[in-house]
Amino acid sequence: MSDGSLRHRMGEITLTVRGPDRRPLADQVVTVAQQRHAFAFGNTGFDFVDLVGGPGPEGSTEVESFGGTNHLDLDRLGDLWLNLFNTATLPFYWGRYEPRRGAPDTERLTETARWLAERGVAVKGHPLVWHTVQPPWLLQIDLDEVERLLRARIRDLVGGFAGLIDTWDAINEAVIMPVFDNGDNAITRLARARGRIHMVRLAFEEARAANPAATLVLNDFDLGSAYECLIEGVLAAGVRIDAIGLQTHMHQGYRGEEYMRHTLDRFARYGLPLHLTETTLVSGHLMPPEIEDLNDYQIPQWPTTVDGEARQADDLVRHYRSLLAHPAVQSINYWGITDHGAWLGAPAGLIRADGSRKPSYDALEALVKGEWWLPPTVMRTDTDGSLRVEGFLGDYTVSAGDRTGRFTLDSTSTTATIDLR
Amino acid sequence: MSDGSLRHRMGEITLTVRGPDRRPLADQVVTVAQQRHAFAFGNTGFDFVDLVGGPGPEGSTEVESFGGTNHLDLDRLGDLWLNLFNTATLPFYWGRYEPRRGAPDTERLTETARWLAERGVAVKGHPLVWHTVQPPWLLQIDLDEVERLLRARIRDLVGGFAGLIDTWDAINEAVIMPVFDNGDNAITRLARARGRIHMVRLAFEEARAANPAATLVLNDFDLGSAYECLIEGVLAAGVRIDAIGLQTHMHQGYRGEEYMRHTLDRFARYGLPLHLTETTLVSGHLMPPEIEDLNDYQIPQWPTTVDGEARQADDLVRHYRSLLAHPAVQSINYWGITDHGAWLGAPAGLIRADGSRKPSYDALEALVKGEWWLPPTVMRTDTDGSLRVEGFLGDYTVSAGDRTGRFTLDSTSTTATIDLR
Repeated sequence: MSDGSLRHRMGEITLTVRGPDRRPLADQVVTVAQQRHAFAFGNTGFDFVDLVGGPGPEGSTEVESFGGTNHLDLDRLGDLWLNLFNTATLPFYWGRYEPRRGAPDTERLTETARWLAERGVAVKGHPLVWHTVQPPWLLQIDLDEVERLLRARIRDLVGGFAGLIDTWDAINEAVIMPVFDNGDNAITRLARARGRIHMVRLAFEEARAANPAATLVLNDFDLGSAYECLIEGVLAAGVRIDAIGLQTHMHQGYRGEEYMRHTLDRFARYGLPLHLTETTLVSGHLMPPEIEDLNDYQIPQWPTTVDGEARQADDLVRHYRSLLAHPAVQSINYWGITDHGAWLGAPAGLIRADGSRKPSYDALEALVKGEWWLPPTVMRTDTDGSLRVEGFLGDYTVSAGDRTGRFTLDSTSTTATIDLR
Repeated sequence: MSDGSLRHRMGEITLTVRGPDRRPLADQVVTVAQQRHAFAFGNTGFDFVDLVGGPGPEGSTEVESFGGTNHLDLDRLGDLWLNLFNTATLPFYWGRYEPRRGAPDTERLTETARWLAERGVAVKGHPLVWHTVQPPWLLQIDLDEVERLLRARIRDLVGGFAGLIDTWDAINEAVIMPVFDNGDNAITRLARARGRIHMVRLAFEEARAANPAATLVLNDFDLGSAYECLIEGVLAAGVRIDAIGLQTHMHQGYRGEEYMRHTLDRFARYGLPLHLTETTLVSGHLMPPEIEDLNDYQIPQWPTTVDGEARQADDLVRHYRSLLAHPAVQSINYWGITDHGAWLGAPAGLIRADGSRKPSYDALEALVKGEWWLPPTVMRTDTDGSLRVEGFLGDYTVSAGDRTGRFTLDSTSTTATIDLR
């Protein structure tokens, strides 16, 4: 339950600040500054794969992508991205990752993940198992072999990227996996023959075995009873899941705080963290409400508009506020940063196709780097060298002159001794 | 899968017909007649409870009912009902069955079940666990005690009626049980606190323990992915269910053969028999498609019309034909026989409120007592006293003069020796 407060996102700590001689710095002017949020403010990092890793392997551009562009250069895109986000989702859709059997796109993804990690970004992989975007060569293979290959893929990815990528959407959209009708594919066949819980179990068990430290997410766009039933079944079957992923692609309009709070309460009752894995708000006209499968809405142009941009910014602030207010929510991943190459051609980015910021970018910045952030702030230690700091949970620095120390505001520690070096 | 054929509903047998002296009756004229369908053609028997058992206990008429009338007399209603149906669903809604704690309506229901059983009708109880129609006294009780009382109710009902009622809707509408918002009630609270699978497990396990021979049905109106997810979860949790119940209250119009076949295929893949537990087709205007919860459609009058009656009859024939064509379907229960007192006031009956037959009654009769039925038919044994009979699976008589023998057409036996007595 949420009362709208963000108290649970904040901490306070009493620091004892010491100099290089390990003696408290009494009555000293210091600068305290937040460096990173503990809360995962995420976005897709799809754009970086080409920019950092170079062009994709043959065949990878012929299958559907879900965002990703390289029309801005790495410096410009990197600055805009890193200014707001600390968590990146990288694409591991089987059909794009391994368009030719036995020749996976490992190197480019490794380079991209490393580039992000070096900049303090936590990297998440998406998704290990999904029915959409399958390599065409998988269709000729019998189901036992498909399952063997799928298991091997999970072990290879999760084991191979361990330490660099420790969060995975283990399985995506299992609710419709056996029944989604969008062309024949081997994973739908497998799910239909063996059942959803079999699919979920294999995803989680293979991934867990390959990296016991990984955070493994069950992810779905279905936020209704079907997903609840699936979760209850999976838990009753003894499969351990680390977080419940909730997509909110709101091309048809923001669903409102009340709906979101009610939805979060419903899924929070399983006692697991909630990850808002895929969040979209458009800055143009809304998709008509009668469209059931968002993929069915294909239009030649979906322009961003002045009114739409204002609405997107307002909705984004309301959405993020209500999500952070719910204690169960651990991350929000926005789905895409620029309109160029956005999923469904929607004006869903926070940056226009020409690279300029939309009001939504500024609005999100005003939250994560403004209202919810401690900018460099001059403070003074007391006669014991002590200093009380209050702020959003995360990583901070305290500095005096050219010496700096680091500390973390978390929900448990109340005191710390910091040596400036 | 279904190819539209009804071959799987039919059998053939070679009888050796013998006289009282146990010698074959060679070259003898006999009359063969079907007496009962093996397939469960069902309807609610709610109307009979007042007619056979007398008026309900104090408080029972103040809670919602789902059909049931006593404006026709027992002979008239009994004739109309027994002419078409061999399986009756009797109501055990907790709020009507036990409006005053500790004073359940056992006697009336026992009398009614016995009256039906004596007429060759198989009786089914509905439902052991449901959130709707709860006794008001249950709201004051804490959840542990609610669960204890619910378990005791299941044991008492299923054990007490064993031999008379051996089929139960063990749990009804578990998909929405924890989230359905229709006034506070103790079962929703319990389901919300303990989860759907806990509720399903307690229903099936208590009922199974009380009557190991019972056929226990999981029943739902949700025919989408949510119900699939629930079923998969329940099976993964090791709960044994005997049949999957599918409601088809089609107040908004017949959903068509293609939808039904696809739906039956989806649920047949769990390898369990399918029971079409609640079937409704209206003979007036259709409920508007935008109504999501049928209960929300409240109008002062919902008349039966000439056009509507013709459509209902056509739809009913199409629906029954497509259902019987699917090998997994084991029963069809129509929901109500007369319009008087029908659920939602809908003209859903096969009999008008004035007691006259609608075209739908005649159409169903033309199937179950016509096209799918062997009326008394004169045949002749061969020189060995043998006779080949082909027909719909069920119970038959063969008679010569005033002597009669009985046999059953099932899908396994190919020969039988019948002694006329």
